[in-house]
Amino acid sequence: MPKLMIFSRDAAEYQRLIESAQLPKLELTTDPKACDIVLGEPKPIQDALSLLSNLKWVQSIYAGVEPLLDPAQRRDYILTNARDVFGKLMSEYVFGYLLFHEKKILQRIRAQQTKQWQRPESGVLRGKTIGLLGVGSIGAHLAGTAKHFGMTVRGFTRSSETSTHVDKYYHGKALFEFADRLDYLVSVLPRTKDTNKIVDENLLNALPSHAIFINVGRGNAVDESALVNALNEGKLAAAVLDVFEKEPLPEDHPFWRTPNLYMTFHTSAISYPEDMTKIFVENYQLYIEGKPLKHQVDFERGY
Amino acid sequence: MPKLMIFSRDAAEYQRLIESAQLPKLELTTDPKACDIVLGEPKPIQDALSLLSNLKWVQSIYAGVEPLLDPAQRRDYILTNARDVFGKLMSEYVFGYLLFHEKKILQRIRAQQTKQWQRPESGVLRGKTIGLLGVGSIGAHLAGTAKHFGMTVRGFTRSSETSTHVDKYYHGKALFEFADRLDYLVSVLPRTKDTNKIVDENLLNALPSHAIFINVGRGNAVDESALVNALNEGKLAAAVLDVFEKEPLPEDHPFWRTPNLYMTFHTSAISYPEDMTKIFVENYQLYIEGKPLKHQVDFERGY
Repeated sequence: MPKLMIFSRDAAEYQRLIESAQLPKLELTTDPKACDIVLGEPKPIQDALSLLSNLKWVQSIYAGVEPLLDPAQRRDYILTNARDVFGKLMSEYVFGYLLFHEKKILQRIRAQQTKQWQRPESGVLRGKTIGLLGVGSIGAHLAGTAKHFGMTVRGFTRSSETSTHVDKYYHGKALFEFADRLDYLVSVLPRTKDTNKIVDENLLNALPSHAIFINVGRGNAVDESALVNALNEGKLAAAVLDVFEKEPLPEDHPFWRTPNLYMTFHTSAISYPEDMTKIFVENYQLYIEGKPLKHQVDFERGY
Repeated sequence: MPKLMIFSRDAAEYQRLIESAQLPKLELTTDPKACDIVLGEPKPIQDALSLLSNLKWVQSIYAGVEPLLDPAQRRDYILTNARDVFGKLMSEYVFGYLLFHEKKILQRIRAQQTKQWQRPESGVLRGKTIGLLGVGSIGAHLAGTAKHFGMTVRGFTRSSETSTHVDKYYHGKALFEFADRLDYLVSVLPRTKDTNKIVDENLLNALPSHAIFINVGRGNAVDESALVNALNEGKLAAAVLDVFEKEPLPEDHPFWRTPNLYMTFHTSAISYPEDMTKIFVENYQLYIEGKPLKHQVDFERGY
């Protein structure tokens, strides 16, 4: 009998949802030694790893699984993560901020406060070019939304070219060709050794000064000092960051005093138990049938 | 030989675009008595109507053609307006404000100013229900964007049910059924005698208090006193208005002091000469072939 243990601050809700799914043979347990399946957030699972003597499969409810990737830790189980569910949420976040910028919503709110019938011209998304650093399931959804709004889409990836919504792919040394004349640069990159500070002074300098940079991937992809400089010097119209090298952002970080920087605090996409339970149910079915699970993470590659 | 006269503040640009289209037989004129075709904004065309002794066809570069609809005026010509070009722009505007609201962008900007790592939960568009008052070409595009974001779409129309993106249509007395439990109400209605104050106290009361109302149609559709009361009493979460009963909005209008009201000043969609020239070129081809023109306005119906 498969035995599931839940490690999540939403454990009660996951338990309710999984029980109501009436999965065949599945038993819930609170004994880490007894369970072969674990569902939850990566951090509490990491803390319990040494106790899970019967572990076969971990279903992470996050997309980012960094706590479970430390090479010093065991990797004798199948790790699956959350995919496909965050694309829609990320699209809402990214295009919410792009439209906020183009429609000059903040300027219009201020104009209204002066009680004047002012008609500043809005920008448009239509016809603009967006560049996606990383095109997995989230990037593919962003690409689809960009096409819906009539934009041109460039994708920079290691090698994959899977989304049909991307007009042109770039790899490796073509990074600066990818960045040339972009209106918007969006990083959806996971934290891996290959993504460290890919958004550095050179890449920021390659963007036009009207460009906007958005990071909804991981903070390690950005050289934060270079971004502070670019914004201070007006080399970039604005940046929107949901992730940072160090979270929570330290109180003395220069980002707190940087102009045209919009910060949200790792909230661009949150895990909804209903979505995650669907993923778990589908993978559980494959698990008991002995078939390969969906959304498996490659411990070496990091995603 | 067809003769075109242009009545527009962008006349020079229209002339350049039309000349470069090299339309067969077409001659440009500045003599109102000589022209059979007129292109431009409805108001200056209205002012010249009595001089246009040879008039056969007016191509308005606006969607709204109220100045040309006065029953006391001549109607012995074909009136075509701008359609299909505003849908994308209106989508950017409407979804820009919906996402601005749901993503709590203004609250996040304020939180950032206090230098605190705060993580208020965002709302989502996905799963929400939007109701469109009026589903012509603009409404159909809004419906398509709503479906892209995973929303349920209701449409209220006189009788037409043309957009496949609308999940359910409502007509006539079903207005309150249409409004029941809507998350967002968007009016795209043209100014006609049938649309006067359709958004009144009763309709606003029928919406949930978390609902947002957006008007990108015409100001006459709204009972402005009722909207002021609804916002003052918290019966509505917010309203976004691009159009008003009287424009420019009078200095002493209560809207300037109404909470949770976002105003823009008839800028949600502007006419781009490139777009309008495409429409004109296509219609001109039909005109010289003696075929029915596209986007004809019914003077009686008003759109």
